[in-house]
Amino acid sequence: MTDPLHNQAKEVLDGYVRRIQNLNAEIAASQEDRKSVYAEAKANGYDPKILKKVIADLERDKKDVADEQAIYHLYLRTLGWDLLA
Amino acid sequence: MTDPLHNQAKEVLDGYVRRIQNLNAEIAASQEDRKSVYAEAKANGYDPKILKKVIADLERDKKDVADEQAIYHLYLRTLGWDLLA
Amino acid sequence: MTDPLHNQAKEVLDGYVRRIQNLNAEIAASQEDRKSVYAEAKANGYDPKILKKVIADLERDKKDVADEQAIYHLYLRTLGWDLLA
Amino acid sequence: MTDPLHNQAKEVLDGYVRRIQNLNAEIAASQEDRKSVYAEAKANGYDPKILKKVIADLERDKKDVADEQAIYHLYLRTLGWDLLA
Repeated sequence: MTDPLHNQAKEVLDGYVRRIQNLNAEIAASQEDRKSVYAEAKANGYDPKILKKVIADLERDKKDVADEQAIYHLYLRTLGWDLLA
Repeated sequence: MTDPLHNQAKEVLDGYVRRIQNLNAEIAASQEDRKSVYAEAKANGYDPKILKKVIADLERDKKDVADEQAIYHLYLRTLGWDLLA
Repeated sequence: MTDPLHNQAKEVLDGYVRRIQNLNAEIAASQEDRKSVYAEAKANGYDPKILKKVIADLERDKKDVADEQAIYHLYLRTLGWDLLA
Repeated sequence: MTDPLHNQAKEVLDGYVRRIQNLNAEIAASQEDRKSVYAEAKANGYDPKILKKVIADLERDKKDVADEQAIYHLYLRTLGWDLLA
């Protein structure tokens, strides 16, 4: 007859492990879905890396993104790269 | 009258953006849930970092994990650290 | 009298460990130096995050960076954000 | 005759860019050296991933590493994996 304390500890630990394993599986499944949306977009001529950057920036304050872009192009122009010319 | 081609492009791009934003939200929500399970385990005396490592190793082949542990302790012992003494 | 084989293994393993530790220290020192250059630039009004992006892009083919920027702004404009207006 | 202010800004920005580029190159070179030491160790039968973990743990307090290992094996044993049996 194993030690009741050990059984109780096993049950608690098992509980955390299973809940986290389920959430890991959920996250992995959603990440796979996301990967296939990017793959679909790519197949239709969209650039996944740029699309990801656009989606991230759309979550931010528009003025912050605009300011960041302005400073980025200012630095590049100062260094001799005028990408918007 | 805006350019129909532009509207069509907007619709397609909007579609990808919304689908990815929804999946991003799903992933973020599951990650938050996972964080709270680890926080709950921590509050009950479990070490989240070690729990995370155990859960990752439980997904692997048991023999691989055992071999890895044996080599890890062999290297440490060779270097003068016998953690299992 | 310890096992000669063990001594030899210890010597070899020690050798790798020391060489890697030295390289880790070198890398950490250069990363610290780099952090202080960014801190200096920040103190003089430059944005470290944008500076880092500019430096990364300067290492790339200028046309690729320009195309990427054009597509980025095209996507954003299509979605209703015209940052360059 | 270009704007002196612009020249001064270019010089300052150039200065930061060059210093960071040099440090990036230094870091990249040391990382390459480190990669070849791991490759050499691998060629002589050592496991790079475990070696990396050992080197990281040797930088820590020995008791902390020993406690962590003890808890790790306790959790695994509680869950039915006794790797040290």
